[in-house]
Amino acid sequence: MEEKQLLHKLNTFLEESSEEERTLLDIIVDGFTKKRRGDYKTYLDAMTHIETRMLDSGEYEIVLPVQPLIENPLKMVHGGMTATLLDTTMGSLVNQSLPADSTALTAEMNVHYLKPGLGKHLRCVASLTHKGKQLCVTEGKVYDQNGKLVAIATATFFIITKPKK
Amino acid sequence: MEEKQLLHKLNTFLEESSEEERTLLDIIVDGFTKKRRGDYKTYLDAMTHIETRMLDSGEYEIVLPVQPLIENPLKMVHGGMTATLLDTTMGSLVNQSLPADSTALTAEMNVHYLKPGLGKHLRCVASLTHKGKQLCVTEGKVYDQNGKLVAIATATFFIITKPKK
Amino acid sequence: MEEKQLLHKLNTFLEESSEEERTLLDIIVDGFTKKRRGDYKTYLDAMTHIETRMLDSGEYEIVLPVQPLIENPLKMVHGGMTATLLDTTMGSLVNQSLPADSTALTAEMNVHYLKPGLGKHLRCVASLTHKGKQLCVTEGKVYDQNGKLVAIATATFFIITKPKK
Amino acid sequence: MEEKQLLHKLNTFLEESSEEERTLLDIIVDGFTKKRRGDYKTYLDAMTHIETRMLDSGEYEIVLPVQPLIENPLKMVHGGMTATLLDTTMGSLVNQSLPADSTALTAEMNVHYLKPGLGKHLRCVASLTHKGKQLCVTEGKVYDQNGKLVAIATATFFIITKPKK
Repeated sequence: MEEKQLLHKLNTFLEESSEEERTLLDIIVDGFTKKRRGDYKTYLDAMTHIETRMLDSGEYEIVLPVQPLIENPLKMVHGGMTATLLDTTMGSLVNQSLPADSTALTAEMNVHYLKPGLGKHLRCVASLTHKGKQLCVTEGKVYDQNGKLVAIATATFFIITKPKK
Repeated sequence: MEEKQLLHKLNTFLEESSEEERTLLDIIVDGFTKKRRGDYKTYLDAMTHIETRMLDSGEYEIVLPVQPLIENPLKMVHGGMTATLLDTTMGSLVNQSLPADSTALTAEMNVHYLKPGLGKHLRCVASLTHKGKQLCVTEGKVYDQNGKLVAIATATFFIITKPKK
Repeated sequence: MEEKQLLHKLNTFLEESSEEERTLLDIIVDGFTKKRRGDYKTYLDAMTHIETRMLDSGEYEIVLPVQPLIENPLKMVHGGMTATLLDTTMGSLVNQSLPADSTALTAEMNVHYLKPGLGKHLRCVASLTHKGKQLCVTEGKVYDQNGKLVAIATATFFIITKPKK
Repeated sequence: MEEKQLLHKLNTFLEESSEEERTLLDIIVDGFTKKRRGDYKTYLDAMTHIETRMLDSGEYEIVLPVQPLIENPLKMVHGGMTATLLDTTMGSLVNQSLPADSTALTAEMNVHYLKPGLGKHLRCVASLTHKGKQLCVTEGKVYDQNGKLVAIATATFFIITKPKK
């Protein structure tokens, strides 16, 4: 799509836009800009503005800001987005522990939803429970801004040699 | 955010935009427009342009177009988005079977990933395995465009009286 | 333990035994005798008198007679024994499909309990959902004598070269 | 079955019995005797001689001696028996926390097997992750005698009013 054409479309969309729609577009463009700079590898991570870090404990943490883009019809964080947060955090932790030519694929994930995902952000912490040559098992916990447990998960990752690009 | 300010920001972003970025913004604005029309209840459903329908068999089907917005760093559909597709399809099926004042919350979901989510779209079919008064158990299967199984899942839903708005 | 000593102990036990205790000992000795004949590979299979067969559909079936030996305090089949039935049926199916020098280890199993395991027997049917080189995914369903669904499960098996004896 | 008839059958069985068979019968009769005394509620708990206790931490612990009765064809603890251990430990913990007229039914259990169950005993520790009015979520971990992790599990329990006898 050409730049001019898209700008026209955006212009038309904005004419009748709500405050919420504008906020979301703003969040998305900010995310895409960060991805362009190399801050994020995927559009999904970029749009959701996750913040990732390795903890001194050997655990991995990702913070996900709560915003309408990731909510379900009940205005809570969509269970699938909580699953995405868990999968990304646990997978990042496993990949962190692998040599550069290997990568981890999620073979299986089990999520328990304990309370609605509400508030300003969700924080996910993943730990490596078992590190085998081909299979890794991880545990992940999701907390809300008050430190209350929102979800817990376990997952099995299968280690493969990275496909060449 | 004001319309003028956002338009300026979008304009600046588009100046150096790639073809892919423009395509994604186009997909997003199209989705948001459909949501405004009432075609979708959530921004997530709208952005991902899912197509939902009840099948004559009593099963529920959702088709999810594959696009860069939902991909992981390996350029396959992110496992979390496959989980989102499964959760939405199974949850929609359960809600379909409930009286208007009730709704279903995902208590637990288990997903097995069988092959990478590639191709033009993923198609999810959910069936109701057990319908109790308070707990429902469902099964979901995700296929690629060639009908190959990409993922299978089971989930437990807890039935509650809808919170009043 | 010497034969004489054990016989004495059994004798003493039987003097005050209930009808149920005698029935169970009878079931156990019958099972152990069948194992001695080579009908069963394990004491657990022998004591529980499971009946296994490959179905023409490519599925595997195991029938488990219900008896006090496998019941929980509520006089239903213990959830762990239902899990054992599922694990054995799904694992047998996978092993059936492997070359003689390979065997399958359960990496992960997920069980949903739908209704109490009651009646004369439980029947489990397992199907092979995905057959990879190293990972297999199976589905299992447990029915009571009236054909009602008691439990469903999925499992991931990891294929290894058989350890040499 | 009459006492005399059973004694005759046992006698015949013992004539050609192996050391292992005698040991197992001994273990079983000891277990049944303990059940008669009220030490165990079920034959399954009795035969497997589990030892249960509530820990000061609020966790629940069960130790399961390893013996041929609970082994699979590879001479490791059968995955189903590990699942039984986990289900019993997690269920006991939940029941411990309930009023006398309520009981917990396992709605769903997910088990990851990390290494073979070998050695003298397996030790399972369960903790209560979430206590709702109707749903409880627990985590369980199984260790071998050296403290190595053998399996981890999560489970969802559904609370009901105890059925009247």
